Amino acid sequence: MTIKLWDLVGAEDDRAFSPYCWRTKLALAHKGLAFETIPWRFTEKERLAFSGQALVPVLQDGERVVSDSWAIAQYLDERYPAKPLFDGAQAKSLAFFLKNWAERVVHLALLKVVLLDLHGNLADKDRAYFRESREKRFGKTLEEVAGRQPEQVAALRAALDPMRPVLSAQPFVCGGAPAYADYILFGAFQWARVMSPAALLEKDDPLHAWRERMLDLHGGLARRAKGYPA
Amino acid sequence: MTIKLWDLVGAEDDRAFSPYCWRTKLALAHKGLAFETIPWRFTEKERLAFSGQALVPVLQDGERVVSDSWAIAQYLDERYPAKPLFDGAQAKSLAFFLKNWAERVVHLALLKVVLLDLHGNLADKDRAYFRESREKRFGKTLEEVAGRQPEQVAALRAALDPMRPVLSAQPFVCGGAPAYADYILFGAFQWARVMSPAALLEKDDPLHAWRERMLDLHGGLARRAKGYPA
Repeated sequence: MTIKLWDLVGAEDDRAFSPYCWRTKLALAHKGLAFETIPWRFTEKERLAFSGQALVPVLQDGERVVSDSWAIAQYLDERYPAKPLFDGAQAKSLAFFLKNWAERVVHLALLKVVLLDLHGNLADKDRAYFRESREKRFGKTLEEVAGRQPEQVAALRAALDPMRPVLSAQPFVCGGAPAYADYILFGAFQWARVMSPAALLEKDDPLHAWRERMLDLHGGLARRAKGYPA
Repeated sequence: MTIKLWDLVGAEDDRAFSPYCWRTKLALAHKGLAFETIPWRFTEKERLAFSGQALVPVLQDGERVVSDSWAIAQYLDERYPAKPLFDGAQAKSLAFFLKNWAERVVHLALLKVVLLDLHGNLADKDRAYFRESREKRFGKTLEEVAGRQPEQVAALRAALDPMRPVLSAQPFVCGGAPAYADYILFGAFQWARVMSPAALLEKDDPLHAWRERMLDLHGGLARRAKGYPA
């Protein structure tokens, strides 16, 4: 039975933008596992009741249901050990640090750049939920946050600073070949790419060349997705 | 022949404060290798001429001379493969990211807190070099930077945010046991501890408990060092 993945989408069923779902899709492709995605929207919490929680990604593999992108990555390496996402115990621990850095530093900086575009590309029924929850988080209106975009782009580029020497020295975050930590960081860029035309990286940034390599992986899975080609 | 390590010190020969030299000393202890340290000060560049450059750590192992803490770590794992500092290719790549995060984010935030204490604990002959080079870097006097210490401590704690979930979930940065990425981050705290009485971490911070574990490692190597016990 094909693996099923509940996947967050915007206005169109094929505008799949969740950075967490992208991690999972690239992890499945990394292992060469076939999967089908099921479009899901923020305000359809009840459709995930079978998983015992209300967030995507949710993966169903036969009888097994796993939610949370990090738990899914562990599950995939246990169930399908070939082509590992983590090549050892240290790699998993250090990827967990990178995950927290990506979510607490990079995602936050990126969200401030693409906030209004995210809102604009959501389904009508999701917009009120998105506006209310994000305005509460920032303590500002979406328009107030997005109104400082040049500064926010500069802040994002500064936040990415520790990754530049890594991607100057080697083609992927994980070294000579991509693995889960690459998918974690790339998920953030794909989230932006699907929802916003904002130019995030300068052409001579080593992160720009890495992002191109990531877009080409697994038959161009991420590049083919609906979005705003850079 | 015992391994020799040129080690940056302050006013006293046993006030060894370089975060990079601490990485190397803990890496040597990790592998159970005996070593002797040779005190060295900022203004003694000519004493390192044999290494072809002017920074510590410099390690001499028989005929072999290696400088730069990252290169030394690679050398140690190649020459002495038992008790590896990195358990695989991904671990090394991700530790390289952590190294750049530590140096570009944590060291910078920490330096702003301990700057005047660093200056105060240097040998007289090193103070002018230190003041001139650091004031040039900051574009401010040491006193101007250090005058905002409560803010700087808050900024340091915020910068460490991505590490907290890691050290809440597991005892060491590298997982169940310490390895090189632990030594990278700990080097920063030991740098501060040797030179400054500033309280950097709150007692209920998971980083505080980790730092205590690191101080106990390898027979209390770091805890025994001259400094300001927290």
